Order: sequence, then C-alpha cells, then structure tokens
Amino acid sequence: MTPSTTGGGRRGLTAAAVPDLVAAARDGQSRAVGRLLSLVEDESPLLPEVMRALAPHVGHARIVGLTGAPGVGKSTSTNALVAELRRRGDRAAVLAIDPSSPFSGGALLGDRIRMTDHAGDPGVFIRSMAARGHLGGLSWTAPQAMRVLDGVGFDVVLVETVGVGQSEVEIAGHADTTIVLLAPGMGDGIQAAKAGILEVGDLYVVNKADRDGATKVRRDLRAMLALAERPEHVWRPPVLLTTAATADGVPAVADALGEHRAWLESSGELERRRVRRVRDEIEAVALGALRRRWESVGAGGRLEELARAVVAGETDPYAAAESLLPG
Amino acid sequence: MTPSTTGGGRRGLTAAAVPDLVAAARDGQSRAVGRLLSLVEDESPLLPEVMRALAPHVGHARIVGLTGAPGVGKSTSTNALVAELRRRGDRAAVLAIDPSSPFSGGALLGDRIRMTDHAGDPGVFIRSMAARGHLGGLSWTAPQAMRVLDGVGFDVVLVETVGVGQSEVEIAGHADTTIVLLAPGMGDGIQAAKAGILEVGDLYVVNKADRDGATKVRRDLRAMLALAERPEHVWRPPVLLTTAATADGVPAVADALGEHRAWLESSGELERRRVRRVRDEIEAVALGALRRRWESVGAGGRLEELARAVVAGETDPYAAAESLLPG
Repeated sequence: MTPSTTGGGRRGLTAAAVPDLVAAARDGQSRAVGRLLSLVEDESPLLPEVMRALAPHVGHARIVGLTGAPGVGKSTSTNALVAELRRRGDRAAVLAIDPSSPFSGGALLGDRIRMTDHAGDPGVFIRSMAARGHLGGLSWTAPQAMRVLDGVGFDVVLVETVGVGQSEVEIAGHADTTIVLLAPGMGDGIQAAKAGILEVGDLYVVNKADRDGATKVRRDLRAMLALAERPEHVWRPPVLLTTAATADGVPAVADALGEHRAWLESSGELERRRVRRVRDEIEAVALGALRRRWESVGAGGRLEELARAVVAGETDPYAAAESLLPG
Repeated sequence: MTPSTTGGGRRGLTAAAVPDLVAAARDGQSRAVGRLLSLVEDESPLLPEVMRALAPHVGHARIVGLTGAPGVGKSTSTNALVAELRRRGDRAAVLAIDPSSPFSGGALLGDRIRMTDHAGDPGVFIRSMAARGHLGGLSWTAPQAMRVLDGVGFDVVLVETVGVGQSEVEIAGHADTTIVLLAPGMGDGIQAAKAGILEVGDLYVVNKADRDGATKVRRDLRAMLALAERPEHVWRPPVLLTTAATADGVPAVADALGEHRAWLESSGELERRRVRRVRDEIEAVALGALRRRWESVGAGGRLEELARAVVAGETDPYAAAESLLPG
C-alpha cells in the first residue's frame, strides 16, 4: 500500500547505487534493466535519480506501438518483428502492456511464455507490465518504462497493447510510430471505425493473411482510410499483409517502419510527437506527486474529509477541488 | 480548443441562468437535462455553478454500471432493463460511454438509434457520451454526467461501457452496482479472467441464453468466481441468464439489483463506494484545473518549454515536474 517505500526497500537499493545500476543496464545486463523497470512499476522514490542518470541518453530509440484486438496475433507478430529487427542488427525491447486488472498479478505468466522465443539473446529484452489504473491506462508507468528502455540503449522499443478504443488513442500519443494489427473474421469495418483505429495507425497490418477474407479486410480498410480527410503531404498509412506465424510479409513491415521513421524526421513530426509525449509524462509525474500529497495530509487525508462532505450534500466536487488547490 | 469559453458561450448561458436550468431539469424537462450534460461535455466554466445548485439533491439515484465486450448485447440489455425498471415505477437515465476516439463525433448517431425504443417517455433519458482522453477514460466527464443525472432526480442511472480491462475497473469504481454482461461464443474463460472481470462484477448476466453454450458459460463463470477468495459476509455475485431480445430473465436482473442495493446499504459498502467515487471526482476536477494552469502560462506554456528541455536531454520528467509544483 506504500509503493514509495517498498520499491527501494525490498531490493535494498540506495540512491548512491543508482548510477552503477544504470551503467550496468546500459552495458547490456538484462537483470539490471529488469531492476530499473521494477523501480518504475513500484513507483520507487529512487525514480528521480534513475531518470536524471538516464536523461542524456534518452532519445535514441525508435518507439513503436503495436495494438490490436484480442485474437489478431499480437504476440506472434511482435515475436516475428523482433526476429526481423534482430536480423537487421537492431537491439529490441518489448513492453507488453497487460490489461489484467491491477488487482491480479497476471503480467508475470505472460513473460515466461514470451521469453522462450528469444531466450539467451542479449539483444532482446521482453517485459510484461500491468496497465496502471488511476491516471488512465498508459499514462503513468508505461511512458517511464519506455524512457528507461530507450535510455539504456535499445534501438527499438516495441510497446504492445490490447487496443480497444482508449488505449489505442493513448499509445498513439506515446509512440513515434503506431502499428494497428487486424485479422480476417475479427469483426466488420464499422466496428473497426468505431474503435477509432482509423485515426491512430501509421501502419496497418492485416495478419493471418493465409485465411479467407484477409484481402477483403485490406480492401475495406483502404477504402475507409481513403475517406478520412488528410491534408496534402502528410503520411498516408500503408496497409500490409502478414502471416506472422511463418514470418511472411514481416520484412515489409520492418521496411515500412523505416519509411515512416524517415518521414517523421524530415517532416518535423518526430520532434512534435516527442514533445507531446514528454508533456504528458511531466504532467503525469506532477499530478501523481500532488495526489500523494492530498491523500497523505492529516488523518485519512484532506481529500477523504472533503469527499465525505460532498457525499453528505454539504458541498460539491468543484468547491472541494478549489479548496485543495494552492493560490 | 478552448472548451472553457465555448461551453457557456455557444449556448448563450450565463451563471445567473443556471438555477432556472437546474430547476427545469429537476422538473423533468429532457431538453434542460440535455443542456446540463452538454455543459459537462464542453467542460463549461459554468459547471461549478451547476454542481453547487445540484449538491443538495445528489445521492438519491442508484448508479448501475453495465459493461461487456462488443457483441454481447449491451444496448439490447440496457433497453430491456430500462423497460423493466419503468414497469416498476423508476425513472431511468442511461449514459452510454462511447469508445469512439475523441477526434470523431461518433456518439451522436448512437443516440438517435437508441432513442426510438423509449421515445416519448419522459421517465427515460438516454445519452451517449464520448469517452474522454487525457486523465483516463471515465474519470473526467462520466462521473460528472452521473452526478447531473442523479441530481436532477432519476431513480436509476445506468452507465453502459464497452468493457475491456481498464474501463471495467474504472466503472466498477464509479458505480454502486456493476453488471458484467457475457454471451456464449464470445471467448473462453481464460479471456474473461484476463480482462479482470472476475474482480469487478456485482452481478453477472449471461445474455443470449437461447444460444448453445450459455449454460456452459454460466457454469464456467461460477466455477471461476468460486475460486476467487472472498471473505465471509461479503456479497457473492449471482450469475443470471437472460435473452434480452425477448426480455426473458430481465425481471430477475432487476430483482438482483434490488438485493445488491439492500446489501450495499446494510453493510455500509454504499457509503464507502460513494466516498471513493467522490474522492476520484474531486481529484479529477482539481487536476484538470492545474493542468489548464500549466498549459496556459506564458507563450506555449511553461509545460511546453519544460517538455522541450526534456526532449533535448537537458533535464528529466521528474526534475521538470518538481519545478511545476508549488512549495
């Protein structure tokens, strides 16, 4: 219940040891990378030290989001893409955001299943992470985990989410490039449009291309994308076909990632996306700090007291919020 | 881009007119209720006035969350449940949280389709609302919309969400009672467990009970619920079967809602849930106000300036956040 103390304490880490841990992680030691990510997950009080040490090294990695509904083959696609990126000489980290509830430890089993494909390859790091609640799915832990993986020297950080609505929009806000994965037989075009995927994808990949209906999904998707109004000279998202299980089509996905990267850089969009992402990060950190302050002042907290007054009909949330704010 | 001015301005509403609008809404005028909800959606600067006027009347409604994956029959179930509640004399409001992206106006079409069933009944109010991004799906607009519908006098406020992971957890935090809807053929038990639904439901309803596999879904779900550790004397979620299209089984759902309500009151859990919900509301309002402050100070905003420094590797999000906070 007090992550701010257990985070550092459980592992016996002190602020003085942070630079060595960061150096070990940057040296390619997976265990050290894992410990840094655990500090993020635990909201450790050492995070400010960690981030200060990493700051000069952040900004190298290409951050790639991969999202899609359950059943489209996200894990298989991620594995195949990582294998392809390895062939091209990139060190790749995978952050799989697990939609399990914050109450259960569902993320761990997934890790063990995933590790087997790339076991023993120090150029691949895979970690599942539970989606964190309060300030909205991705906005707290995931961006900081992405920052760590970037700062310790991976060339590509792949962030995999179960994309339904909100989480897709959020990941698009945090990735340089967002891949939306679909598959035949997973619902019609209207559902796709409803989930908002037409606005967030930089690349669309129709997986399970060996199944009936894949080319129809591609055709429908292209038609829908063509309807979306886009100004001239912007990126027009390609729609690719893959069979991730056999790696068919995966090299073309890696190529398209490179093309999108080149466009991001030449258009200035990379800088814009990164500034936006960091704004969200700073806000999330600041808001988290304020929340801890509000919850910890006095017996039960000032916030608790105000909430009881609102429930009793004595005041309202706006007046209560006003009384919490400085100045 | 500046909802704080368009909200009031577009409709020509002044602070002085708020009490009359609230009175009209409490008098059962659907148009007035709709205008109040528009103020919530627009984040109008008049919201503090609205909430102050409503404060003494809030707390009467039973807030019921209804969540389930796409395709389980949420709209049909909501309609059938509303019809049953009407037969029992309750005035019912439905808030359908639309997972459409914040960029598209997807919520509106849904409204028109839904209205037809209860058209002309002043005891039913139905509104779709886009899920709002930044501070996490439900946490900003939906709770305030629920507060409005409660304050204007509905007996039941039904909040319908497409439940996949995060949003289920959030709605459970905001409803007095959460109904989790399932259907045969929508995925196996492991997926159900993965989405965290076993922790959030107060009532489980297996819809489309006329299809093959419904009783198996119920059996599996009961087995999984039995595995979950629950202390003695807590609520044990029932698993009911319905065919919403024909209203079969729907009266039993309404009965179960009443039983859960009685338990909530006798156990003190109602008060606990409501205080928790209001805490989140106050926080969301306070954090929103702070964010607006950070974003509006100076050219492009202090936050933007800090974000650029972080992207340039000159500082990190923690140090940047620290410099934003008072004291």
